[in-house]
Amino acid sequence: MLFHVTMDVRIPHDADPAKIDRLKAEEKARAQDLQRQGIWRHLWRVAGRYSNVSVFDVADAQTLHDLLSTLPLFPYMDVQVTALCRHPSSIHEDDR
Amino acid sequence: MLFHVTMDVRIPHDADPAKIDRLKAEEKARAQDLQRQGIWRHLWRVAGRYSNVSVFDVADAQTLHDLLSTLPLFPYMDVQVTALCRHPSSIHEDDR
Amino acid sequence: MLFHVTMDVRIPHDADPAKIDRLKAEEKARAQDLQRQGIWRHLWRVAGRYSNVSVFDVADAQTLHDLLSTLPLFPYMDVQVTALCRHPSSIHEDDR
Amino acid sequence: MLFHVTMDVRIPHDADPAKIDRLKAEEKARAQDLQRQGIWRHLWRVAGRYSNVSVFDVADAQTLHDLLSTLPLFPYMDVQVTALCRHPSSIHEDDR
Amino acid sequence: MLFHVTMDVRIPHDADPAKIDRLKAEEKARAQDLQRQGIWRHLWRVAGRYSNVSVFDVADAQTLHDLLSTLPLFPYMDVQVTALCRHPSSIHEDDR
Amino acid sequence: MLFHVTMDVRIPHDADPAKIDRLKAEEKARAQDLQRQGIWRHLWRVAGRYSNVSVFDVADAQTLHDLLSTLPLFPYMDVQVTALCRHPSSIHEDDR
Amino acid sequence: MLFHVTMDVRIPHDADPAKIDRLKAEEKARAQDLQRQGIWRHLWRVAGRYSNVSVFDVADAQTLHDLLSTLPLFPYMDVQVTALCRHPSSIHEDDR
Amino acid sequence: MLFHVTMDVRIPHDADPAKIDRLKAEEKARAQDLQRQGIWRHLWRVAGRYSNVSVFDVADAQTLHDLLSTLPLFPYMDVQVTALCRHPSSIHEDDR
Amino acid sequence: MLFHVTMDVRIPHDADPAKIDRLKAEEKARAQDLQRQGIWRHLWRVAGRYSNVSVFDVADAQTLHDLLSTLPLFPYMDVQVTALCRHPSSIHEDDR
Amino acid sequence: MLFHVTMDVRIPHDADPAKIDRLKAEEKARAQDLQRQGIWRHLWRVAGRYSNVSVFDVADAQTLHDLLSTLPLFPYMDVQVTALCRHPSSIHEDDR
Repeated sequence: MLFHVTMDVRIPHDADPAKIDRLKAEEKARAQDLQRQGIWRHLWRVAGRYSNVSVFDVADAQTLHDLLSTLPLFPYMDVQVTALCRHPSSIHEDDR
Repeated sequence: MLFHVTMDVRIPHDADPAKIDRLKAEEKARAQDLQRQGIWRHLWRVAGRYSNVSVFDVADAQTLHDLLSTLPLFPYMDVQVTALCRHPSSIHEDDR
Repeated sequence: MLFHVTMDVRIPHDADPAKIDRLKAEEKARAQDLQRQGIWRHLWRVAGRYSNVSVFDVADAQTLHDLLSTLPLFPYMDVQVTALCRHPSSIHEDDR
Repeated sequence: MLFHVTMDVRIPHDADPAKIDRLKAEEKARAQDLQRQGIWRHLWRVAGRYSNVSVFDVADAQTLHDLLSTLPLFPYMDVQVTALCRHPSSIHEDDR
Repeated sequence: MLFHVTMDVRIPHDADPAKIDRLKAEEKARAQDLQRQGIWRHLWRVAGRYSNVSVFDVADAQTLHDLLSTLPLFPYMDVQVTALCRHPSSIHEDDR
Repeated sequence: MLFHVTMDVRIPHDADPAKIDRLKAEEKARAQDLQRQGIWRHLWRVAGRYSNVSVFDVADAQTLHDLLSTLPLFPYMDVQVTALCRHPSSIHEDDR
Repeated sequence: MLFHVTMDVRIPHDADPAKIDRLKAEEKARAQDLQRQGIWRHLWRVAGRYSNVSVFDVADAQTLHDLLSTLPLFPYMDVQVTALCRHPSSIHEDDR
Repeated sequence: MLFHVTMDVRIPHDADPAKIDRLKAEEKARAQDLQRQGIWRHLWRVAGRYSNVSVFDVADAQTLHDLLSTLPLFPYMDVQVTALCRHPSSIHEDDR
Repeated sequence: MLFHVTMDVRIPHDADPAKIDRLKAEEKARAQDLQRQGIWRHLWRVAGRYSNVSVFDVADAQTLHDLLSTLPLFPYMDVQVTALCRHPSSIHEDDR
Repeated sequence: MLFHVTMDVRIPHDADPAKIDRLKAEEKARAQDLQRQGIWRHLWRVAGRYSNVSVFDVADAQTLHDLLSTLPLFPYMDVQVTALCRHPSSIHEDDR
């Protein structure tokens, strides 16, 4: 199943820089690992904002939640999830 | 360049059914043609709504506008455009 | 998979009453059929509004969309879909 | 009476971790106790967010308020309450 | 139980004036009848708008919905319902 | 004159508990005093939220402002004021 | 008492032009009459919109409502009312 | 003075096509004339929407209003006006 | 030129009281000085909120900005500016 | 390509003044440098707010993002980006 996910990241100005840098590094490693597994199928940066638009390819919502809620930067994110499905005009059987 | 585009379609209840069916058929043909050209790169249906989430791969905003504004159902759409770019954590050089 | 769905119904004041009554009857029959199948798991009325809160138990978002988009009153609905999953504090293995 | 309740939890980044962990444990115990009593009838996690959708089965709004306002994490919650009633198309006499 | 209800009335400009006048008269009669029964406990006009703020004293949400949804002007209303309960600082046992 | 007032109270998580408890006690005393004077005519709790809906019976807006702005918890409140007047369908000459 | 009132006028595109012109003329006459009486104290046009910002000097909200709700263009207006009072930094005893 | 103006155009689906085409032609002529006069200083199309972002260079708000409110398509526009002034970091004395 | 300005003041609960009192005193002095000059033409308190509605009579937007942005409490304000002009129904040549 | 960018700057009240002053100076230097390069084509102040409206002339969204996200004050900004293109009524071939 595909889920469209937007993540707006807001790091409080008085957060511990060292901690945040560590979390960012962990976040990047996790994101790249999930992309290699084909789970985090698309990851784009929204131009001009500390936000991304992503598409996840997972079995179901539980898998998605377990994945998102354990992202290192999750506590600093405002996440919006939209369930996607095949568009009748799509030429792809399975628009990955 | 990649643009993230959402299209919410609202057909007035008193619109001429025949006209709308014709426009829908034209819309599908156009969408499939643009997909085959690799321009309309992704086209997903938002589950539960007459809406889609799309990603367009175009030279620039002018190309995007000329394309969207001439879609048969454009007059019945509320369109939101977001410019995308490569995410620093993306493992893809060019996340198409 | 469980989906939380809200449906706000807005019937235009100049819609054909006979047509709307027919659609309402069809909608009721369909809703009751889907409930008997255990698909439309919960259907509650929002007090004071022509709106409902529902929970659907379906295989995936595609099934949900095919079901919702073919409801007789779908053209008159504003639908919001939220993907649900098991809450870590739930005592139910599967909170249907 | 059934009440639909959404709870968005926002833990300030500089809150005392030990205190929050304690509150979370108390919250889980309370939630499970109320579920066993059949009061907290449904508790679902919103996929991707630190939010839940719940349905409470209580005598009236006062009971609901006394219950919600004494939840350990209440000070960190944005709560929305919607009064529900039986939908005319529901096949259940009492859609618990 | 007390419910706080706001009703914003929007009469389409091309509605049949005679029909609307009839509905308004029926609405007034119903409202006054319910007030005499002590059900429609408070009915205030929002200064400057075709809106009212009301407080209903009913057994439960089902009663409230059956009452509101059968108001003659209901199809032209945007209704918001808020469940009320006793405020700990109220000097009234039962602030009707 | 009647004013409909909603007060959403948000106490910062790092506020001094002793100070807040003191302010809450003062707030309760003031609210009860104003109720006894018939000024704070109605005070209801919004079920599930640290919010109230109130109706004030005052000479004019200046009186209302002087009263609200000197409430002990005013600095922690988001207040919305709506001027009310008699509804043409009200059976009460003066719906207090 | 002073009330700050904004009026956004939206004339439906298919409204009868003659009727609307008549209503506009009546509206202008009424507005000018009320200004001469010192009731409609300020009437400004919002640059770029078919909207105005006004300040009314009336005895109370009832007077304001009776006046606004009988304006010829009232059915085509979205009105927002804000009760004003003297600002502690105003050098005017009575900032008309 | 510079004013930033956005114009969202919404043509009702049942408007008379001939009338709208005429208005569009008049609108284009007026816009080009005002651009030649240096009044309509910038006119950009928002990619994907029937909207524009413009910057007007006028003596004052009255001039701006008289100009905008007499645009042929004004009745079909939702206009937002923002007053601009020189930014302290601008290298232009007068950023036209 | 007239500008309609609303100022919502939000003082952080952990701001230094002495500093804030000093700023408030400076703010009052500046506001009264500008009123005496006829620049800050109207200054009203929004009943029930730490907000004001003001009308400024200035040469242009630059003057307005220089004035507002140097108000002592500006860093704690959410400011909305609306450019005003003469209403065609105003009986005043220059509705100051 | 032209991008319309709004930047609302919110400096936390408890931020280190010296650090903020340094960032502001760096921001001004960067902005002026980019203006001289013709990249930051327009930079206007929104009257009354710590906000600007800008137009950037860049190759694509990636360039825009790299530029905006490295502005010294970026962490304190809420940025909205809108892709622009040539308006069919523009008399300029390339409305810079």
